[in-house]
Parts: sequence; structure tokens; C-alpha cells
Amino acid sequence: MKIEVVPTWQSLNPRQVEGRVGVVIDVLRATTTITAALANGCRAVCPVSTIREARSLYAGPAKKEIVLGGERKGERIPGFAHGNSPLEYTRDVVAGRVLVLTTSNGTKALRKSAPAVDVIVMALVNAGAVAGYLAGQQRDVVVVCAGTKGSLSLEDTLAAGALLDALEQTGVKIAANDLALAAVQVFRVNRGNLKEAISRSINGRNLIRINHETDISFCASLDRFALVPVFANGRVTSR
Amino acid sequence: MKIEVVPTWQSLNPRQVEGRVGVVIDVLRATTTITAALANGCRAVCPVSTIREARSLYAGPAKKEIVLGGERKGERIPGFAHGNSPLEYTRDVVAGRVLVLTTSNGTKALRKSAPAVDVIVMALVNAGAVAGYLAGQQRDVVVVCAGTKGSLSLEDTLAAGALLDALEQTGVKIAANDLALAAVQVFRVNRGNLKEAISRSINGRNLIRINHETDISFCASLDRFALVPVFANGRVTSR
Repeated sequence: MKIEVVPTWQSLNPRQVEGRVGVVIDVLRATTTITAALANGCRAVCPVSTIREARSLYAGPAKKEIVLGGERKGERIPGFAHGNSPLEYTRDVVAGRVLVLTTSNGTKALRKSAPAVDVIVMALVNAGAVAGYLAGQQRDVVVVCAGTKGSLSLEDTLAAGALLDALEQTGVKIAANDLALAAVQVFRVNRGNLKEAISRSINGRNLIRINHETDISFCASLDRFALVPVFANGRVTSR
Repeated sequence: MKIEVVPTWQSLNPRQVEGRVGVVIDVLRATTTITAALANGCRAVCPVSTIREARSLYAGPAKKEIVLGGERKGERIPGFAHGNSPLEYTRDVVAGRVLVLTTSNGTKALRKSAPAVDVIVMALVNAGAVAGYLAGQQRDVVVVCAGTKGSLSLEDTLAAGALLDALEQTGVKIAANDLALAAVQVFRVNRGNLKEAISRSINGRNLIRINHETDISFCASLDRFALVPVFANGRVTSR
């Protein structure tokens, strides 16, 4: 199984994912939040790029079934009920509802990965489950890290490494690109202390600055959920 | 001191290096070869992009003082006396002469870094010396890894990590970007076994395939040279 890790959605060539499975990672915080919401009974998550798109979906007779969430520069958007913290999407808030979520980076990574055979949503919280799914598929994989402002982010690299590590444990024979080789080593160095590692990253330091340190603990909790969310037709649902 | 590591010359924005020191890394093999040639008494190295440029410099009355070298896809160029192996540039070959070297990636990385205050040429063979120089300068640094075909390469990441590790040992206070944080960890994991790590990389496997395994040993030899090569006005000379 070939596994290529790409450091940012900007550096992805959409042709790279054709005929392959795309795994999209945005640990802080879009893909963690999507996974958490689905784990708490959310029916589907619609990731959208713009605030206007989010508002246009939050209308009509089904409005009661929709939860509106998202962030800009890490902060909740004025008029939105919720931000981008995975801790907000409890069962009370999302069970049986659809979450319309607008985030800066994660949505772009998902949309750019759309030519893939399957687009899987992954974070540290569900890396093991995704590894199990991929081991069953036996298709080549492109891991699309969202990154931050066009640069590699440590937390996404750690999650890519967690995926590689879990895949190796299934006994699957892997041909990895150089970033994948590096990512699995970085993951293994920090496995026992993911929260501290992420706290040193650029995004981690930003979240601490805006008083979202508890989000880091949540986003760092490896394999909290045994869920494989799939993005198709503009919606993420649990497989 | 701010240190940003950039994974490929393609992902460098030349404005990033303005007012900073640029450190260009292409471990396999351009920057290792340049450093080795200078260590063996070469007067200057002129890195050029095209075979035509190399041939045009290799002309006129000074022809005897010029050595023509380079590679395409890792192999020596027909009609060129030498390839891109650092082992070829012995004292016999280069002492007192100018090396005109054309390589696929390294030259582009050097030229794109030109807006920097200083452009330093680095590989694993001289990481410690470059760290010492940077510690003395106290300027912000952008480490430009050449990468391979537009993707991060493991060997350049290891060298970036070696630089960070050596800089930390000097006691300099460093603000690192996420790739720098990852690189130093990957270096520390592989410090005792750099050759083996590089042999698993994409470029390493290619060199083994074309029978250049001895180059990997040479390129992996940390701090073999106490040299700080500087690129200015189209030439690399030893500071």
C-alpha cells in the first residue's frame, strides 16, 4: 500500500488523489470537531467555506434541525450558536441534528480531496479506526494535512504519524513517502505526551493564547472514538 | 532567533528571506558536493541551472582552471568530466580550480534564496560549523530545503534538524516553526544512524539503485567539515 503524506492542502495536486483514498487531517480543530459531533449522534456535518454559505443553509423549515458553528482566527463567529471547539458539540447540542460548520482550512482540504475514491475525515481522536478501515481497503492512500497558512503543522504531522504507526501494526506492507517516514518517527517520540507536543506548535500556542487550552487536551486524546467519517456530496457522515 | 524551515524551494516565498539569513540544504547531493569541493581547495563553485550555461562558462582561456560537473536524474551528463558525487571532487581534481556545477534542484534553491542578507550552503557534513556561524550572527534564519520534485525530502529534514540541534547546544534562544520542531526530533531519533535513515528515503533508494551507495555514507557523515560556504554573485566560496 502506497502512502503519501502531503503537508498542506495548498500543496495537494487534486490529480494525486484520483483512484486513491484521501484522508483529510485538521487536528486543530476541524476534523476533531467533526468526528466528535458525529460520535455524539450528529446526523451529518456540512463543512462550508464561507459564513454566507453557512447562513444560507441555516434557513427554511428545517432550521430547527440545524446547528450553526464555525470560527475565524480560532474565535466563534458573531451570530453563530457555536464555535469550532469539539467540546461544544455534546449530545444535547447535536444528537439527531445536522451541523453546518465553517472553518478556515479544513473545508478547503476536504473539497480539494474530492476527486479521491473515498474522502475520510481523520484526527488523533480516530486514527486507529481509520487505520483499520484502510487496512481493509488495500488501496493507495494520500493523507492531506490541512496545515496552517500554507505551512506544515506539527499536530497534523503527529496524526499522520499515528495513522502510519497503527497501519504498520495491522501488518500491512507500506511504501511511504519521506514525509510519512518522518511523521511516524515524530509521532513515536511524542506518543506518550501528545498534549505537550501540540502545546508547543504554532496552532497550539494560539489556542492557549485565546484560552482554549482544554481543546488541546481533547484534540490530543488518541483513539477516543472508533469512528470513520466519510465526506461525500458536501456532507460528512459516519460510515 | 526565529528559525523557519521550508520543505522545498518551490514553497519558498522569496520575500520570506528578506532581511534574514538563508541556509540552503540539498544533502543528496548538491550542497554536500559543493562543501566537499571547497574543503578540498576548490576556489569557488558556480552552481548553474542548465547544461548550456555550464558549457558556456567552460570556455575561453581560463578553461584549464575550470572543472565541469553535474547530473541529470542522478547520472553524470554526457561530455562532462564529473558527476554530482562528492567523492569525485578530490584535491587532485579541484584544488585551485573553479567548479561549474549543474544540478536539478540545488541551484534553484540557491537562486531563489538570493534576496537573503546572506545565503549559506549547508549539508549534514557542515551543520555544526553553520550553527556556530549563525549563533554569532543573531539574525533570523530561513532554512530552505531543496526537497525532491516539489516534496519534502527526509535527508534535508535531517540536516535542518541537525542545525537546530547544534544551535540549541550553543544556548541561543530559538523560536522555531512547526517543521523545525519536527525536524529536530527526527534528527535526534536518527543521529546515531544517519546513513541507514537516508537509505530509506526516496533519494537514498534511487542512489542505491544507480550504484551510488557510497555517496550516501559520505553525505551522512555529520560535521566532517568545519566550513561555512557562502553563495553570492553566482559563486559559492568559503567564508
